[in-house]
Amino acid sequence: MVAAQPRGGAIRRARRAIIDTDAHDVVENERALFPYLPERWRRHLELFGTRGPTGGDRSGPAPGRPVSDPALMRERLLDGWGIDLAILIPLSEVGRNNNLELDAALARAVNDWQVVEWLETEPRLRASIAIPYEDARLAVEEIERRAPDRRFVQVQFMGRSRAPMGSRIYWPIYQAAERHGLPICSHASGGADYPTTGAGWPSFDLEEQVATAQAMAANLTSFVFNGVFERFPKLRIVSAGNGLAWVPPLMWRLDGSWKVLRDEAPELKRLPSEYVREHVYFSIRPTEESSRADQLLKLIDHLGFDDRIVFASDYPRGGLADSPDGALPTGLPEELEHKLLYANAYALYAQRL
Amino acid sequence: MVAAQPRGGAIRRARRAIIDTDAHDVVENERALFPYLPERWRRHLELFGTRGPTGGDRSGPAPGRPVSDPALMRERLLDGWGIDLAILIPLSEVGRNNNLELDAALARAVNDWQVVEWLETEPRLRASIAIPYEDARLAVEEIERRAPDRRFVQVQFMGRSRAPMGSRIYWPIYQAAERHGLPICSHASGGADYPTTGAGWPSFDLEEQVATAQAMAANLTSFVFNGVFERFPKLRIVSAGNGLAWVPPLMWRLDGSWKVLRDEAPELKRLPSEYVREHVYFSIRPTEESSRADQLLKLIDHLGFDDRIVFASDYPRGGLADSPDGALPTGLPEELEHKLLYANAYALYAQRL
Repeated sequence: MVAAQPRGGAIRRARRAIIDTDAHDVVENERALFPYLPERWRRHLELFGTRGPTGGDRSGPAPGRPVSDPALMRERLLDGWGIDLAILIPLSEVGRNNNLELDAALARAVNDWQVVEWLETEPRLRASIAIPYEDARLAVEEIERRAPDRRFVQVQFMGRSRAPMGSRIYWPIYQAAERHGLPICSHASGGADYPTTGAGWPSFDLEEQVATAQAMAANLTSFVFNGVFERFPKLRIVSAGNGLAWVPPLMWRLDGSWKVLRDEAPELKRLPSEYVREHVYFSIRPTEESSRADQLLKLIDHLGFDDRIVFASDYPRGGLADSPDGALPTGLPEELEHKLLYANAYALYAQRL
Repeated sequence: MVAAQPRGGAIRRARRAIIDTDAHDVVENERALFPYLPERWRRHLELFGTRGPTGGDRSGPAPGRPVSDPALMRERLLDGWGIDLAILIPLSEVGRNNNLELDAALARAVNDWQVVEWLETEPRLRASIAIPYEDARLAVEEIERRAPDRRFVQVQFMGRSRAPMGSRIYWPIYQAAERHGLPICSHASGGADYPTTGAGWPSFDLEEQVATAQAMAANLTSFVFNGVFERFPKLRIVSAGNGLAWVPPLMWRLDGSWKVLRDEAPELKRLPSEYVREHVYFSIRPTEESSRADQLLKLIDHLGFDDRIVFASDYPRGGLADSPDGALPTGLPEELEHKLLYANAYALYAQRL
């Protein structure tokens, strides 16, 4: 394990390289996509709007904040924080439309919109491929459409899909992603037909923010026990916005359960935690975990790895306002800070960069 | 429309030809399937059982009644009622297993079991193909495996699938069924993740029995508005065990809604009710609808067809005990009675008989 350094210097911070793995380009209103939608679906949206299950991501931007503005992102995030490269994770209704044809049309429009209004205006941006993941065939079509454009560096799920993500209904998506060297990013929230927690619908948005880790824990459990990593050995998963400290207890529990119940998943050849350690990246947001360096180092010791943790601003939703100084606890070893802020993410996306 | 005759004669009843479109071969316990399951899944069932969503079909046979016995079906139903041909609809856990690999293994075992223990012991039987319908690719594999055996005359869904049946996630199944001239039978009940009614979980099994029509109405609505019958023009649907009298009001409502909201489903080329009239068969069980001939004739008048209604005993669950005399109201015109008891079902399955 790595040891804590007593102080992180302001001078080193000023010149550090940063990859931000989670900057949001927000579709505040489907009208922003109208230039990229065929007439049939423009008309559909005008007359009927979208139609999805209840619940999910309601933690949008504060009213009046122009979050769909690339110039503002350039000023506040890229220049303001000194970000070398930011991975866009679009926030939109894609993935939550019961009308799967509409969902596919919206995904395609979101990706066109990302190309024209974001990627072509700012070279420090890369993007996630929005897909209609509840229909694997339509999703694979969209992956194939975007894969030749290497500015798309990963495939995006929202974390609350209809079934836990290891289900074989999604396997064609993983096959396509693996083939093109595209990680699968599962971002917190999303909307499914189910309550956001295993105990039912919560009262507060605050509860839902905390609950995102539950969905991701269920997704990781599902990936492992469905044998997804045996079937797609080069597949990488990015858990975005779901926190990190719950992962060691989950791995211990996966291993413990599997030792007793392994006959239910005979495809597994190794301890469940080994698959997590090898295939899953976790992004950490400012202020999400403990702000004490010694506690982060202990967490890394429990995880057993420090090369699959990546930095995420969660712009424009992060709690850090306009300063990068609180991105990580002060006092981390310089080499570790470099890994968390830059090197790990670079390795994650190297096949596409 | 057809007119009521004052009396149905006992003599005519004694020699009428009957096709029973809904006789159940019940898998009372997965152990009955063990001879047809690979060791991996026998072990799985022994250690873990099945694992499905809450709710669904709990209206099994009365305790101690040996419903899995072909000899008893021969004696009580085929000989006892004078049935010329009975279509087996297996009742099992297939379709409700969250583990889709297990669901596919069980479907295959159910179909093997039907061949060996039912079809090969009684020439008056035909069977429905059990499929793991929540994974279309696995389901199509099973259809292709059974289609060459013409004793399988239709493909079986339980009526409460995860999404309404018109969803494109199921389209590959309909494509395969259409190609082989196999109707899709949606039998009442089944188990999904959702409450059995639009108003939540009911208290009584009686309520659930009544609620099956709700699921089927939603399925028909979904078939029509998703354009399934435009895409698969030879596809036929069999609504089994869901009743009939709710269908005219549904068709009126479909047509009325579509006239106002047709832009949401621009693929439709005709009135919704026309698709229902051309593509959907309804089975009627004894005592399920009114027992008055004049009311059944009025219902047929409202439906606008009498050639897509077929007879179903629902053996061993039917309310008719051991006499066929209550199968239809007395006093129906002889020609109509022949259509309902025999000719309509023969036309439905003619491609496979």
